[in-house]
Amino acid sequence: MIILGSTGSIGVNTLFIAKENNIAIEALSCGKNIKLFNEQIAIFKPKFVCIQDEKDKVLINHGKVFCGQDGLKAMIAECKSSLVVNAIVGFAGLNSSLMAQKLGKTLALANKESLVVAGKFFDTSKIKAIDSEHAALKCLIDKRKDIKKLFITASGGAFYKYKIKDLKNVSVKEALKHPNWSMGAKITIDSASMCNKLFEVIEAYHLYGIKQIDALIERKSLVHALCEFKDGGISAYFSHANMRLSIAQAILNKHSKSFIENLDLLTMSSLKFEKISLKKYPIFSLKDELLKEPDLGVIINSANEYMVYQFLAQKAQFLDIARGIFKSLDHFGVPKINQIEDVFEYDKQVRLYLDKEMK
Amino acid sequence: MIILGSTGSIGVNTLFIAKENNIAIEALSCGKNIKLFNEQIAIFKPKFVCIQDEKDKVLINHGKVFCGQDGLKAMIAECKSSLVVNAIVGFAGLNSSLMAQKLGKTLALANKESLVVAGKFFDTSKIKAIDSEHAALKCLIDKRKDIKKLFITASGGAFYKYKIKDLKNVSVKEALKHPNWSMGAKITIDSASMCNKLFEVIEAYHLYGIKQIDALIERKSLVHALCEFKDGGISAYFSHANMRLSIAQAILNKHSKSFIENLDLLTMSSLKFEKISLKKYPIFSLKDELLKEPDLGVIINSANEYMVYQFLAQKAQFLDIARGIFKSLDHFGVPKINQIEDVFEYDKQVRLYLDKEMK
Repeated sequence: MIILGSTGSIGVNTLFIAKENNIAIEALSCGKNIKLFNEQIAIFKPKFVCIQDEKDKVLINHGKVFCGQDGLKAMIAECKSSLVVNAIVGFAGLNSSLMAQKLGKTLALANKESLVVAGKFFDTSKIKAIDSEHAALKCLIDKRKDIKKLFITASGGAFYKYKIKDLKNVSVKEALKHPNWSMGAKITIDSASMCNKLFEVIEAYHLYGIKQIDALIERKSLVHALCEFKDGGISAYFSHANMRLSIAQAILNKHSKSFIENLDLLTMSSLKFEKISLKKYPIFSLKDELLKEPDLGVIINSANEYMVYQFLAQKAQFLDIARGIFKSLDHFGVPKINQIEDVFEYDKQVRLYLDKEMK
Repeated sequence: MIILGSTGSIGVNTLFIAKENNIAIEALSCGKNIKLFNEQIAIFKPKFVCIQDEKDKVLINHGKVFCGQDGLKAMIAECKSSLVVNAIVGFAGLNSSLMAQKLGKTLALANKESLVVAGKFFDTSKIKAIDSEHAALKCLIDKRKDIKKLFITASGGAFYKYKIKDLKNVSVKEALKHPNWSMGAKITIDSASMCNKLFEVIEAYHLYGIKQIDALIERKSLVHALCEFKDGGISAYFSHANMRLSIAQAILNKHSKSFIENLDLLTMSSLKFEKISLKKYPIFSLKDELLKEPDLGVIINSANEYMVYQFLAQKAQFLDIARGIFKSLDHFGVPKINQIEDVFEYDKQVRLYLDKEMK
């Protein structure tokens, strides 16, 4: 199989499962973690590799190194594997998702941004989401037709215990402290702002075709999703917060063996569901608008991505992330997305707009 | 359809659903609640009716009244309906279950004792259990093959908050106070002693063919069952404690309409699972033995039934129920059940034995 973004948390865990199940690795890609990438190359001996920056090429211990977005597309096209795990972070993952589908490959998708910005251009029946909430929903929905509403859960992120007034001056270090999941910087900030949950709602819509979706806070990240049926019943999916389960469910056909420990229901602390405060997490207030106009996804994603990296670079404050998103939405309104090129164009325009605004 | 035990809690709720869904009632049976039975006859106009005691026949406002166990069998045989709801309490329900299956009718079974005492004589693929835990398990199991373990939940019954030493002198009135469900006397006592949960475990085994089953206490009766998968995930089924949902799921083919309110996840109190204390609920300590030797079901059920009625008649104390069961097991050992007649014989012998012991 092909693993894009192999040095991130999803990539590393996917390689672990591949090794355990003797799945050959045809190709790997990474961003900037060259040291780990070279280690992975030595162990998994991929036929092809791809890195983000051409200037790092000389550092890579491999004979066939592709570079950048064009390199990713070319590499995927050269591969014979039918499975692509896309764990690239952000909008940069879109091209690879599109290429994988164009070539008829199965897409195991951790890059939720592909669906957020361009969900309507994908055949989601051929996508297996690598996301604990969506793997849970898949198990709960199965083939049932009598679904009333879906719920995904949120941990509340790094700032669950913070007062709204204290969010103004939070540091990057504070925002990177996720209570339950160990993940990359971008998605950890998205969890702190609840933008990640907004994205997961629209991801669930694209995957399962249901617009009745909401999110609830469940502090322990032990319940991942719930499915409310029309007859009055609700089913829920529990597991330890461990991405290996979602990855295994996405990349292996049979999963009758144990990938993670089952929860011990008796020692598990008590469970409680809470409402997401829209005052504290204003980005999540965009949920209904986004479900109504999924094309807004590209504006929200691009603005968020831009602002998160400004925050990580300490050029913006935490609350500026939401401000940047709302400003961009005000400026661009509902985008006109007729072809996939429009998505790339809007992404560029949003970033240019925020570049000017940030000066 | 045919409803046996129409004046009990399940019977009344089944008639409610039948009325709402315009299902004609071909036959009804009842035990001793003649007043309500006559009201039901006036409203639902069944073609046939059956009562427990011949001496009550003159009180019934109907032209075609069957009586007793033979009457039940004869009535079922005369009916054209393909669906029999068996909500008779205790061993007295067995004959009707057997007759329904013999005639190829679908059995919607609230009389769990049929399976406890004679599960191996039934084709359980044609049985729809009317029991919140089993309806929940059905939804969770669906067609999955990768099941590791099943859990059903118990409320803890009337004596959850009692200390073990205080159980010695509890009154019938105290034992009849179930925290969550409004049910008949027999099953409410069985809940207080946890015998009901023991029966539900073996019922689940007969229905779903899985021996890895346990029960947990969940005080609110909002989670009814959980299914642990081999891969590390767990699914759970939630609903309000309302038997109408289980009845609707058992008797209606489509259940895309709302039978009960969905739980409000946000106002729902926090959930906690607890171990069943075998010191407090000694009857439940028979679980593994019963799963290993399901034929023990007839001894346990007959002894329990006998002792519960002794307790209800204030001729025995609450803890005597467990004593009577353990004594009978010691006396009879593993019964030799080769044909269904053996079940009836053991039932008789256990009662005769306890008759002597109680003198």
